[in-house]
Amino acid sequence: MYQDFKLVRDRPVAIQVKEYVKRLIIKGVFRPDQKLPSSREMSGLLKVSRNSVIAAYEGLGDDGFTYAIPSQGSYVAAMVNHSTAYNGETDGSSFWQMDWKARMNDYAVSAVEMDMMKQGISAPKGTISFTSIAPDEHLFDLGDVKRAFLDRMAIEGQVLLNYGYAKGYKPLIEYLMRYMENKGVNTNGKDILITNGFTEGFDIVLSALRPSARRGAAICENPTHHTAIKNLKLQGFDITGIPMEHDGIHVEQLEAVLQQQTIRFDLAYLTPSYHNPTGIVMSPAKRSAVMNLMMKYQVPVIEDGFNEELRYSGAHIAPLIATAGQGNGVIYIGSLSKVLFPGLRVGWVLGDKALIDNLESIKRARSIHTSTIDQSILYQYLLNGNFDKYVKKARMEYKRKYELTKTCCEKYLPMVDLSGDGGLHLFLSFPPNVNTCQLLDACIEEGVIFTPGDKFFVHEGEGKNTLRLGFSRVSDENIVRGIQIIGKQAHHFI
Amino acid sequence: MYQDFKLVRDRPVAIQVKEYVKRLIIKGVFRPDQKLPSSREMSGLLKVSRNSVIAAYEGLGDDGFTYAIPSQGSYVAAMVNHSTAYNGETDGSSFWQMDWKARMNDYAVSAVEMDMMKQGISAPKGTISFTSIAPDEHLFDLGDVKRAFLDRMAIEGQVLLNYGYAKGYKPLIEYLMRYMENKGVNTNGKDILITNGFTEGFDIVLSALRPSARRGAAICENPTHHTAIKNLKLQGFDITGIPMEHDGIHVEQLEAVLQQQTIRFDLAYLTPSYHNPTGIVMSPAKRSAVMNLMMKYQVPVIEDGFNEELRYSGAHIAPLIATAGQGNGVIYIGSLSKVLFPGLRVGWVLGDKALIDNLESIKRARSIHTSTIDQSILYQYLLNGNFDKYVKKARMEYKRKYELTKTCCEKYLPMVDLSGDGGLHLFLSFPPNVNTCQLLDACIEEGVIFTPGDKFFVHEGEGKNTLRLGFSRVSDENIVRGIQIIGKQAHHFI
Repeated sequence: MYQDFKLVRDRPVAIQVKEYVKRLIIKGVFRPDQKLPSSREMSGLLKVSRNSVIAAYEGLGDDGFTYAIPSQGSYVAAMVNHSTAYNGETDGSSFWQMDWKARMNDYAVSAVEMDMMKQGISAPKGTISFTSIAPDEHLFDLGDVKRAFLDRMAIEGQVLLNYGYAKGYKPLIEYLMRYMENKGVNTNGKDILITNGFTEGFDIVLSALRPSARRGAAICENPTHHTAIKNLKLQGFDITGIPMEHDGIHVEQLEAVLQQQTIRFDLAYLTPSYHNPTGIVMSPAKRSAVMNLMMKYQVPVIEDGFNEELRYSGAHIAPLIATAGQGNGVIYIGSLSKVLFPGLRVGWVLGDKALIDNLESIKRARSIHTSTIDQSILYQYLLNGNFDKYVKKARMEYKRKYELTKTCCEKYLPMVDLSGDGGLHLFLSFPPNVNTCQLLDACIEEGVIFTPGDKFFVHEGEGKNTLRLGFSRVSDENIVRGIQIIGKQAHHFI
Repeated sequence: MYQDFKLVRDRPVAIQVKEYVKRLIIKGVFRPDQKLPSSREMSGLLKVSRNSVIAAYEGLGDDGFTYAIPSQGSYVAAMVNHSTAYNGETDGSSFWQMDWKARMNDYAVSAVEMDMMKQGISAPKGTISFTSIAPDEHLFDLGDVKRAFLDRMAIEGQVLLNYGYAKGYKPLIEYLMRYMENKGVNTNGKDILITNGFTEGFDIVLSALRPSARRGAAICENPTHHTAIKNLKLQGFDITGIPMEHDGIHVEQLEAVLQQQTIRFDLAYLTPSYHNPTGIVMSPAKRSAVMNLMMKYQVPVIEDGFNEELRYSGAHIAPLIATAGQGNGVIYIGSLSKVLFPGLRVGWVLGDKALIDNLESIKRARSIHTSTIDQSILYQYLLNGNFDKYVKKARMEYKRKYELTKTCCEKYLPMVDLSGDGGLHLFLSFPPNVNTCQLLDACIEEGVIFTPGDKFFVHEGEGKNTLRLGFSRVSDENIVRGIQIIGKQAHHFI
């Protein structure tokens, strides 16, 4: 006994002793009404100071695991209903085995089936991976983040740690309203809801717009963001995908689908800038055309502001919601996850005031509110002017990698049709006979992985000759080597 | 012009200049291809350093709002599709007005209707408010929280700020597994999912257990946590409430309902310790009886670990999931929001491994993952041993307030039946003829508010003579004065 007590560093000794003895009590090593060794004795047995044992025993009393008899010592309390699993006694419900798999509903089963992380490509260490489009953490300015946290804690630490508001942290909402105005948005009659990143915002919007009595119907670009496809399907939407051209969605096909009016569309999901996965920026002319169509057919637009901030060159292009001026037909969902720090789970939904008021109640029902710490760090970081500094650095670095990746693709993959005007990835279309899932299998053997493009398409079997190449977290050397390898393997398929 | 430029403190001047000029461009004050004032000129006009203007102009170029002509200056870019709302030009979609209210589905409408915050009791400043059961922020040990953040950032700041895992932050999951073992839980075959507090955890569990083809059926204590009632209803569950006795749920009535077998129950939601709103702790005998019934009728139990940590006296009582030993019929949802800091949105779902695996995919689809900053602060705070120290202080303070509140109720409200064995509130039942909504109206006039108890009951019209008195954020003086006032007003109703 007591040999299994191992002190760890950087943790108060008294806490470690308390937890150790608690565990012995739970396991039934010490029985109810048994006297614990005296603090002096225990101190010798565990080789810790007597003060630590005294503090530990006091804590055990506070937690109701022991009781003290003055001038005698600490005794184990007759704990109520503690686990029978350890001490061998039996209790009916300890054999209760339920088949949880059988109890999962369609939603839960589909969530697993469409969970890309669960069908992730596993590859040995050292593999060159083009699968991620998360930012490169080596660019993170940790000092500025720490300062933002400490600044804000000094101003209103007690407020940050208590309950916040479902709608979001007020200073951040006001900041983002101005931020969106500076993108040309007319914010009259509009409001912002803060969410746990883009995903929660999108899911909340869908849950409010999903028809009560029938399946929903959505239009989107094809291919598109696979999380959006997943969430649309999980929320019971049928999806109509419109093909992409090099300057954005195929407007004539969009119009044809809308004109038929066989389906009443509940919403359109669009990513006009640095579209995921193709990286295409929708042209100004198409933006106007799309907005006019949506208005004509009264289809609300959900605009994904994805990576809008990672513009490398050219004039500023206003988001669709800015194009709409005083109109309220667009719901814009923004996030700085891909640009700044994905670990800070902050996104925002900007839209009509009456709509946001409804979404606020849904947000409250789902998760009360978004982490105030995350929101306040982001707010102070923006206020301190760190964002501009960081984005300048990030844009430069990603632009360099983007150009390197592009050059390598042109050199080693002359057979592909390349798309991507910015952001953190490029999208490659091979001749129709190249199956990128098979190409991936060949490349894994050579130590390179990427994301086959079929995952981004609305229907099974589409995009089998495409792939997405995320370069943000790959070193220059590996970008060159990785694309060389993909090129070599691709030749076997042509 | 330029008179409306007002510098604020604590923000880089260059950023302020950049945003100011950006706004002038957006508003159309500067037109496309117009030359901006030279940096020297602008520096004089805005009364800022020339370096700030140079940096601001550079930023405008980076963002695509201007272009530079070498040795001539900065010119406004012909921005693409920027808002027409400001400069008076017209665009079709800028008049697009959509009736969002009409587009909201039943779920969204119900979420608003059941949103307690939207029917909140508004009262003038200085009102004594017993409505909150949030912790008292004056107890918060801000220094320890800051240290936890800085400790963790120093160890793995880059990891914390990039994407985490849907299941949660690994060190925290491991810590909580040991924490639950120390409550007597047999964790074999079980796992933990980290969520944005209790509410998200509960909502995710419901979304997985809600039957696909029919409405759900749930059993719970009556009264119970109003958020739980709301979320059950929003997820399409019909609720059967079982009355409470002074030592917990009415077991005979529970058995009678289960025996009838007219309803197939999909789950039972129970709060065995410091039940909200009654504050009652379920007796050990009832815990066993309830678990045996649930097993017999194969009804999964969702256990709300609400305020379990705020035990003021008596022996440690194991949660239901500990009683169940190796059995897997209980899903435990824990949170330290009420005990520690509600601003840190961290809760956990502990249950069967196969179940948690499904819930993990749902969590990923809903919000990717819980804030890693929140999780890592909580982890390091726990690891540093601050929790024990804090809870000791909090328990002492709340116990004192609890006893004061109880004494005052006994003195000034002799007509009420009082319940509550710990936690942050007491529950009061008046004689049947006292309507606490009317009593509240009378008390508001005298500057006191509380939560009428009917909100916590499953069916309309129940509990009209009850109220919840949250004392955690009320000063001693106001506790005495407030209860005196309630007592005086209550006499008018008897």
